[in-house]
Order: sequence, then C-alpha cells, then structure tokens
Amino acid sequence: MSEQIDVTPRTRVKRAHNRGVYGRDELYRVIDATILCHVGYVIDDAPYVTPTFHWREGGRVFWHGSSASRMLRTLEQDEVEACLTVTLFDGVVFARSSFNHSANYRSAMIFGTPEPIADADEKFRVLGVFMDRLAPGRWEDCRRPNAQELKATTVLSMPIDEASAKIRSGPPEDDEPDYQLPHWAGVLPITTVIGEPVPDPALAPGIATPDYVRDFDLKKG
Amino acid sequence: MSEQIDVTPRTRVKRAHNRGVYGRDELYRVIDATILCHVGYVIDDAPYVTPTFHWREGGRVFWHGSSASRMLRTLEQDEVEACLTVTLFDGVVFARSSFNHSANYRSAMIFGTPEPIADADEKFRVLGVFMDRLAPGRWEDCRRPNAQELKATTVLSMPIDEASAKIRSGPPEDDEPDYQLPHWAGVLPITTVIGEPVPDPALAPGIATPDYVRDFDLKKG
Repeated sequence: MSEQIDVTPRTRVKRAHNRGVYGRDELYRVIDATILCHVGYVIDDAPYVTPTFHWREGGRVFWHGSSASRMLRTLEQDEVEACLTVTLFDGVVFARSSFNHSANYRSAMIFGTPEPIADADEKFRVLGVFMDRLAPGRWEDCRRPNAQELKATTVLSMPIDEASAKIRSGPPEDDEPDYQLPHWAGVLPITTVIGEPVPDPALAPGIATPDYVRDFDLKKG
Repeated sequence: MSEQIDVTPRTRVKRAHNRGVYGRDELYRVIDATILCHVGYVIDDAPYVTPTFHWREGGRVFWHGSSASRMLRTLEQDEVEACLTVTLFDGVVFARSSFNHSANYRSAMIFGTPEPIADADEKFRVLGVFMDRLAPGRWEDCRRPNAQELKATTVLSMPIDEASAKIRSGPPEDDEPDYQLPHWAGVLPITTVIGEPVPDPALAPGIATPDYVRDFDLKKG
C-alpha cells in the first residue's frame, strides 16, 4: 500500500501515488522515526545532498554542524531554500514481475528557507534539546558547549509548513495475470539495530555505561 | 577517524575533514555498500531530495523509476545536474563534550549530468543488471518487462567522474582536558539487518523461498 501525506502540499511536487492524505501527526511520526536525514541545497545552480542529524521541536525541524560547513554556510544565508528528507527503508518488495518490484519505506520531505539561530542562549537551549532527544539525560551528563564552541556551531531550523510524506508498506502488488506465475513474491524486511555500546578505549575506569546509552533508540517520541 | 575520498574532487566542495584521500576502489565500496541513495535535483531554483534505489556497473551509477516521476522527468532533460548521495549510518559517537558528539558513517556524493537510456534493448539489459545486483538470479526468475513497461520506466545513469566520499569510524575524539571528565564516551554501533522473508499472502502453494532471497545482502560486490 502506498500512501501520501501532505501538510501544505507543494503544488509543484507531483503526487505519484496519492492513495491517502494524512495529517501532521503522521508526518511527525516519519520525521521522528530516526535521527539521520539528507539535506538538499543549491550552489551555483547545482544540487548537493548532505547527510546530517536532525531533530524536531514542535512544528520546526533543526539541524546543525560546524560553522565552516559549506552546507550550513550556504543555507544560513537569506532566502536560500532547503529540502530536508527523512527516509526509513523498511523492506525490499519482490513482485512476480520485475516492473512491480519496489521498496517498503517511509519518507518525509520538508521544504523551506532555513533560519540560523543567532542568539547564543537560544542556540545553547536547542542544542540541549538535541542532546536530550538523542539520549534523554545526556545534556546533564556531558560537558556542555562553551562560548567558542557555540560560535563554531551553526544551528539551522525551518518551520514544517510545506512538507509531504510517502509511505509504502505491505506485500507486492502484481498485475492480475502475473499472480499465476511460478516466481516467489514477498517482502524482505529491513530493520536498523543498535548494537552493544563500545566504550572509548580511553574511558577512565569506573565509568559505567549509562541507561540512556543502553536504552538508546533511534526512534524519538 | 574521519577520512575523505576524492575521485575528481569538485573544487567547490569544501573538504571539512581531509584526513586521507583514497581512490576509486574505496569510493565504489561505499556506493556498493547499500542499494538506497538520495538523489538531489533542482526545480525552479529549489532543491529536492528523493530516496531511490541505485546500482553501479563499472564506472557508472544508475537509478530508475516511473517515467511519470517528477524527479526522473526533471533529470532526463539535457544538461540538468544531479547529486546522488549514498550514506551508511554506522554509529552514534558519544564524546565527553556535547561539541564532539558525532556519527560514524560512510558517505559518497556523485555529481553529474544524468543521461536517460533511450534504447529499449539497452534499458532491458541494465534493468537485468539491476535485478541481478538486487538478488543474483532474480532476473531469470521473474516476469521480465514488456515493451509497455519499458516505456513506462525511465533509467538514468551518470559517470562516476566527479565524486567524493567521507568516512568516519572509531571512538570519539575529545579535547585533551575533557578526557578527565566523568562522562561516558564511546560508540553505539548501528547495523542494518535483513529479517525473515515474508511471503506474499497471495503466493501460490509450493513456491519455495529462493536462495537469493534467503541469502539477500544489501551489500553488493
């Protein structure tokens, strides 16, 4: 089953599989289902796609990195557009026909004009939100950024106003005559697994692995 | 350890962590390590990022989809540029300072001007390459595309001439004074796992799960 979720649909995005329109809750579930996204931006008319961490607070999505990053230096400028795409790859779909092979996935695209967070206190606050989204309690249990580090960090955010999502799940959909064919059809599920924590070889003795590391989950909220 | 791989470096890409320059073999290993990529493109000056399957044959990367796809209709035009990014998210890196938290990952960016495959025989051939990359033997064990399906499928490819890759692996790197702090540091490994095949509920009785499904691996070559 292929579904499409739109908040405020960008009209120039074609709805290839518009089999359902869902609301903000569904969209947020996709955004919050992992911490890795791909950010698209344009430099000299050419597209770039960079993987990065993202997090959501209310109706905004955030990402950050080194102030020297080309991606962030581009996107912190006025009126420069970004596309932030979050994808969960859930399975390979084997159909009887090669044509109907597919993927099960959840994907959200958020379009907008990112704004940098200029205020140091607000930057500090949202970085705390990020750390605690990453691992609840970590912000209190790390050395928080100093003024120099805050300056060396760019945080961007944009409102989740213009966005769409697509979800495909379930078995293959073959053309009716193909159901008689002798080829295997079905789904190979794909999941992401968190392994055992690997302590830093330089970790001082006596520092136990915190619960927020043991209980780590990529899925947020 | 953070490393950068360049084939023919795009000079306008800043090398943020140029701690090593590797060759084409390393780049191909990243591209071949999974089948999902994110393709960036530009429509009306705005960036778009779409997840899709990719495959590599020699020094070219390929992707495909419905001829009605906005992404493919945009990129099959003359002189329209794409960025194809492949990312493997290998771990969350917990440093003692919030600033030095990071991700372990492998990522490749390929830049170019994609070309559609117009010839039906060649399109048929490369779709066979894709199917057999997906699951070796599947092309012989499925209903292959007919003329109408070939027409409804757009296949794009571009040479892997302008590309770069980044790899981060290993433990966190904290600032020297922070090694004395009492905060846990280390890596949470992240892996992608293939689950048990789920046969189509409509599968005819007596069709066994093929070895190429049982032995499926996202990693190619």
